[in-house]
Amino acid sequence: MTATKILVAQGGGPTAVINQSLVGVVLEARRMGPVERIYGARHGVRGIVNEDFVDLTRETSHNLELVAATPGSALGSTRDKPDLKYCHQIFEVLRAHGIGHFFYIGGNDSSDTVRIVSEEASKAGYPLRCIHIPKTIDNDLVCNDHTPGFPSAARFVAQAFAGANLDNAALPGVYVAVVMGRHAGFLTAASALGKKFPDDGPHLIYLPERDFVIDSFLADVKATYERHGRCVVAVSEGIHDASGQPMLTQLAKQVEHDAHGNVQLSGTGALADLLCEEIKAKVGIKRVRGDTFGYLQRSFIGCVSDVDAREAREVGEKAVQFAIWGDRDGSVAIKRTGFYSADYELVPLSDVAGKTRVMDDAFIAPNGTDVTDAFRLYLRPLLGSGMPDAYRLRPAPVARVLRP
Amino acid sequence: MTATKILVAQGGGPTAVINQSLVGVVLEARRMGPVERIYGARHGVRGIVNEDFVDLTRETSHNLELVAATPGSALGSTRDKPDLKYCHQIFEVLRAHGIGHFFYIGGNDSSDTVRIVSEEASKAGYPLRCIHIPKTIDNDLVCNDHTPGFPSAARFVAQAFAGANLDNAALPGVYVAVVMGRHAGFLTAASALGKKFPDDGPHLIYLPERDFVIDSFLADVKATYERHGRCVVAVSEGIHDASGQPMLTQLAKQVEHDAHGNVQLSGTGALADLLCEEIKAKVGIKRVRGDTFGYLQRSFIGCVSDVDAREAREVGEKAVQFAIWGDRDGSVAIKRTGFYSADYELVPLSDVAGKTRVMDDAFIAPNGTDVTDAFRLYLRPLLGSGMPDAYRLRPAPVARVLRP
Repeated sequence: MTATKILVAQGGGPTAVINQSLVGVVLEARRMGPVERIYGARHGVRGIVNEDFVDLTRETSHNLELVAATPGSALGSTRDKPDLKYCHQIFEVLRAHGIGHFFYIGGNDSSDTVRIVSEEASKAGYPLRCIHIPKTIDNDLVCNDHTPGFPSAARFVAQAFAGANLDNAALPGVYVAVVMGRHAGFLTAASALGKKFPDDGPHLIYLPERDFVIDSFLADVKATYERHGRCVVAVSEGIHDASGQPMLTQLAKQVEHDAHGNVQLSGTGALADLLCEEIKAKVGIKRVRGDTFGYLQRSFIGCVSDVDAREAREVGEKAVQFAIWGDRDGSVAIKRTGFYSADYELVPLSDVAGKTRVMDDAFIAPNGTDVTDAFRLYLRPLLGSGMPDAYRLRPAPVARVLRP
Repeated sequence: MTATKILVAQGGGPTAVINQSLVGVVLEARRMGPVERIYGARHGVRGIVNEDFVDLTRETSHNLELVAATPGSALGSTRDKPDLKYCHQIFEVLRAHGIGHFFYIGGNDSSDTVRIVSEEASKAGYPLRCIHIPKTIDNDLVCNDHTPGFPSAARFVAQAFAGANLDNAALPGVYVAVVMGRHAGFLTAASALGKKFPDDGPHLIYLPERDFVIDSFLADVKATYERHGRCVVAVSEGIHDASGQPMLTQLAKQVEHDAHGNVQLSGTGALADLLCEEIKAKVGIKRVRGDTFGYLQRSFIGCVSDVDAREAREVGEKAVQFAIWGDRDGSVAIKRTGFYSADYELVPLSDVAGKTRVMDDAFIAPNGTDVTDAFRLYLRPLLGSGMPDAYRLRPAPVARVLRP
């Protein structure tokens, strides 16, 4: 095999482990005889068209290991979604630099970019191997058991709810937290893994896979509050009504029509706020608090699943092996082979590109506000080792003296 | 010494380590000869007036250790602020149950409750030893170097900003995060400890100890963005103008007067949202994101400073020692004796009760938007061991080919 230059880039939202994949590519490529140079593009595809490259061949293995354990996208990322013309530009730069292997770490959009660049190279008769490396906290790539980045974000969400449940038990009321995931509810559903005792929250989970009906929501909250004296709710940012219209838009309108003045401005986070206002106004509960986990759920440093870190590293390594030893382009996919064990396959780019996976019906309880044991069994091993646990005092009541 | 019953309760907002103090009281009291029974009141002072007690003497040491390592208030908490009549009721219940020692773990308000109950007992000639055990993530108790709960919350904030900075570096723009602390800026200032490299965020920190001027804020953000191509901002929820009026109220009004329709409803968290809208409208930066850390900063499970956990345990233990071997009521206070070492004193309740500590001028940079090295040196040892660290790729640019 002739000497080759490889190029690696990172696209879309950063995750806790995306640098593991980057370093997996670099360190595995270093072991390969034919690899002469390993370039990284700064800020994804934008860095490619701008020829903004760094020479990763010159980085030490030791520092690469430290970068691997650092969240965020070390090369920088981009939200650019290349069209055909943009992809042609990418290809022209790769050809000008004599790049023989192109690795792009990202989600749906990134896999589609890789697919188009692969076709451009093929049309031009230029020998370029293109591999997509999966990454997304939304867990919405098809062909994958799960995607790197999701387990660590899920761990953050589970830990956040485990803590919020304890806080809510100490100072009872209603707590509503909004979790990322516009179309797929996996991350919101991960809140269920923060639950230990039968009366722990989250008591209610609202996913974008089910239509959201505000009256049912309010009735659910009321019933839970009457049963437990408190209520912890997990809500996906993507909840929508039967017509597909996002609840945020709908509730915002309602509140405006209420002429309640500035109710929209209180609390923390628009959707969380609006749901809290609805509960206060229509269920009549006083202590109602809302949080929006925001960027913390994908960027918090110090909350990583070791399983996720290991797999993110491996998809990078396998990408290089598929590229150097294989004979076709594709997307690296994670397959579950045991409880718990994973292996990797190279699937056609067109099988993954531009498609969105959502939660299976088997993962969602019939009432639509909880997950099933199948989901718990699916997610638990991905959260990794050393999950913090919550303990309680056991009941040992003392007899009253003044008012027996 | 005659046999005694002790009562312990937890008040105010839960913290990551408040159960360490509870368990410190229980386990230390068990070693004391004269202690016959150890009761815990459910949900603070409310549980006392309702005679809602649990017998902690019947709990195993092993489970107590597990509860100690669990965040939240294991006995439950309350927001009740007892007046004189309420305190009299507390005293009557303590007398009816033959309680000889009363321990209340909490902040300013809790110390004032302990002070009044102590005076009631004294007036009635009833032998009751009353000890306040410090706790607050706001770090706003006077007489203390710092307060249990603050170091772990500060660690969460530092880790959150370390991660948010990496995310913002990967996808540049402006990021504004709102941190708890209405009067004292300690927790917001802790964001500075998430910074490693000179160009890391938070680039700007706004504390309630300084007046907030919106035009200066916008000019600061603009200048930072022009210098670094991005800007990470930490804002205390308590920022206010020169007259003391909270910025949230002010900005909400401005936005209403803007007649921009529903601008108030977008994003995550009212104050963060409003500041983001101001930046978008008046500085003209497109990618502006806001987060409000909300309850996560005090309830997230799995982010504890080991120094904080140790000290929270010790204030509980020392409280029992002061109560059983000493001859006066008081509040346990943390004193710094080395870098880093702490010891504990019993200070008069009236010295602590109802007073609020804010950040020293020596901790705030002259420009008002950063902390000093004195603050970094003050806070760093409190964050404990094993702080996650962030690493970067070193620059190794590759020459352009197409557009040299």
